[in-house]
Amino acid sequence: LNVSFEYYEREKPIPPEEYVRVNHLELKELVTDIYKALGVPDRDAEIVADVLVTADLFGISSHGVQRVRRYVEGIRIKNVNINAKVRVVRDFGTTALIDGDNGLGQPIGVKAMELAIEKAKIYGVSLVLVKNSNHFGIAGYYSLKAVEKGLIGITITNSENLVAYVNTVGRTLGTNPIAVAIPRPSPPPILFDAATSVVPVGKIEIYSKLGKKVPPGWVIDLEGNILSGDAKEVLKAIRSRKAALLPLGGLGEEFGGHKGSGLAFIIDTISGILSGAAWGYHVGHTIGTRPANVGHAFAAINIEAFMDKDVFFERIETYVKEIKSLKKHPKADRIWIPGEKAWLTMQTRLKIGIPLHKNVYNELIQIAREVGVTRELRIIKQQ
Amino acid sequence: LNVSFEYYEREKPIPPEEYVRVNHLELKELVTDIYKALGVPDRDAEIVADVLVTADLFGISSHGVQRVRRYVEGIRIKNVNINAKVRVVRDFGTTALIDGDNGLGQPIGVKAMELAIEKAKIYGVSLVLVKNSNHFGIAGYYSLKAVEKGLIGITITNSENLVAYVNTVGRTLGTNPIAVAIPRPSPPPILFDAATSVVPVGKIEIYSKLGKKVPPGWVIDLEGNILSGDAKEVLKAIRSRKAALLPLGGLGEEFGGHKGSGLAFIIDTISGILSGAAWGYHVGHTIGTRPANVGHAFAAINIEAFMDKDVFFERIETYVKEIKSLKKHPKADRIWIPGEKAWLTMQTRLKIGIPLHKNVYNELIQIAREVGVTRELRIIKQQ
Repeated sequence: LNVSFEYYEREKPIPPEEYVRVNHLELKELVTDIYKALGVPDRDAEIVADVLVTADLFGISSHGVQRVRRYVEGIRIKNVNINAKVRVVRDFGTTALIDGDNGLGQPIGVKAMELAIEKAKIYGVSLVLVKNSNHFGIAGYYSLKAVEKGLIGITITNSENLVAYVNTVGRTLGTNPIAVAIPRPSPPPILFDAATSVVPVGKIEIYSKLGKKVPPGWVIDLEGNILSGDAKEVLKAIRSRKAALLPLGGLGEEFGGHKGSGLAFIIDTISGILSGAAWGYHVGHTIGTRPANVGHAFAAINIEAFMDKDVFFERIETYVKEIKSLKKHPKADRIWIPGEKAWLTMQTRLKIGIPLHKNVYNELIQIAREVGVTRELRIIKQQ
Repeated sequence: LNVSFEYYEREKPIPPEEYVRVNHLELKELVTDIYKALGVPDRDAEIVADVLVTADLFGISSHGVQRVRRYVEGIRIKNVNINAKVRVVRDFGTTALIDGDNGLGQPIGVKAMELAIEKAKIYGVSLVLVKNSNHFGIAGYYSLKAVEKGLIGITITNSENLVAYVNTVGRTLGTNPIAVAIPRPSPPPILFDAATSVVPVGKIEIYSKLGKKVPPGWVIDLEGNILSGDAKEVLKAIRSRKAALLPLGGLGEEFGGHKGSGLAFIIDTISGILSGAAWGYHVGHTIGTRPANVGHAFAAINIEAFMDKDVFFERIETYVKEIKSLKKHPKADRIWIPGEKAWLTMQTRLKIGIPLHKNVYNELIQIAREVGVTRELRIIKQQ
């Protein structure tokens, strides 16, 4: 198969001298070894590493290996249970409720989506809720598990409070993302994966690194004033809990802030309230004094319950082609289908390696040594 | 039961001298009779009237009886089939595909949600897709049908192209709403019902009537320029197909335009592509030269598949109370739970009547006379 290849990275490593590139497999092995050294069962450690490295491959470094420390600390202080007995506690036809026993969110998430897939194959659609879980990384990872089996996957989760509920100040809602993955006859699959806040914190972190200014409309302080300008200052305010992200749609209702806020609330109600997990500002952090009790929900849809897969593929390809043929906005770089940016970034990084900020690289090596892992992480020579 | 009552209307009749108030039951009877006179079966006519009048009770006049003419014309020109044989064409455990046979969207929607409810009672969750349907009014109406039976209801639909896909100009997507209704121990239920565009066209119609200015960020022209200012001019551009609504999140990606656009695309893929209905700019209009072939999707979730209903009620009430106790933004009128505005408006209008613009009132009487309905529609004396 001889396909043309395009180098594309959603998040470019800027400035380049602050970054090194590493091979994704070697990175995954190092991260796996770190968690194994802490006593995490082999397969669980592999899953955590795969979710983290996939985020870096997708160009979502905020959810990538820079978070290795977070889970390591959660395990060290025993706020995360590495010997969790993940159990189905209620099973009702094509739904199930899983108790994660305060385990790592990633293996719990994979198990829950696998169950959702099995049920949807039989019944057409399924819904698996999870309580007593932890942060599980990028939601899209789990939805793509359904696509691997030919199904549509939907993943939602609540998360620690960072976002202001519409018409209020302070942090109440998580960034509560929704991720929907839809198969196509050939890659990339459609992957819509979006926080219900106007931006994720990771975007402000990137702006901070690049010395860019935060535009008015992303963040408010505790008095309800818009915070903008110097991204370093904005980030500091967020980290010291003196500011909140705005929901998708922004401040107030004029541009739909009640819609982003309402979506986050609905996602919280299904993944948090209905699962028996925490909700709103009760959702904890991995490195906290009590279990985070994050709640997730996983649904799968069996395409063949509705139409033959060939017909579906023909229809979705026509739609994609039609979108690609639209008139581009003069200020836009190009017309994207949801998931394409992540996919192209992954193809590029599988070839030329994953860029890690030197601080992140050094921290990884440091963590490895702390837990007794001696494996190297080679730096790829730049051509 | 002696509860305090608050007069509240989401959409106030302004200026008051241009409006009359009518009783909701008399309004519903008149509208029912109009459709019956056109040959619509009794129960279908009642459902169409109920959906329209409910929109007016909720304060969503854009989807209320001002649309009686639209369906009447669709029937008259035979672009809508009043003798539709609505059939389940695929049944797969807890999913079904319904062929609406180009019938009125409202009775098809009710039938589909009733099937989704029955299946969710047995299996825990369900998904019913519909093809060959027509515009069905407010999506929330169907989700509330599930709440009446104690379940969570989710409704999505595609609709005629009005919205620009992110990074493009022109109209590709419908306003493709999502409506989620969640039971509470006592009314109002939670009802999140939102178009995935930044605003619905109805909002611009209201701004036009009130002589208000459209803020920059709602609409773009075919060259991609933001259209704002005089709402009458903006509305004219939209109606002459020279402008498109922006998706939730606005222009480009800076404030999340790819999120609103992506949500609309996903909703279209499930309700349109997967159902076998039209999609994108192929979705037709009620008054058109070919069947609209609108697609819908209805899901229901059985709360008791996950937890006892009493526990769920206790948890959701706690969450609602916590939100109500947050610190209000200084510029906000109050803190709202999704669905409260519609509910309070309905309570008010059940008591003092539904305000109809005199043009809408006169048009209704005119339509009634055209089809041979002689029933009066009394104007309520203002106190």
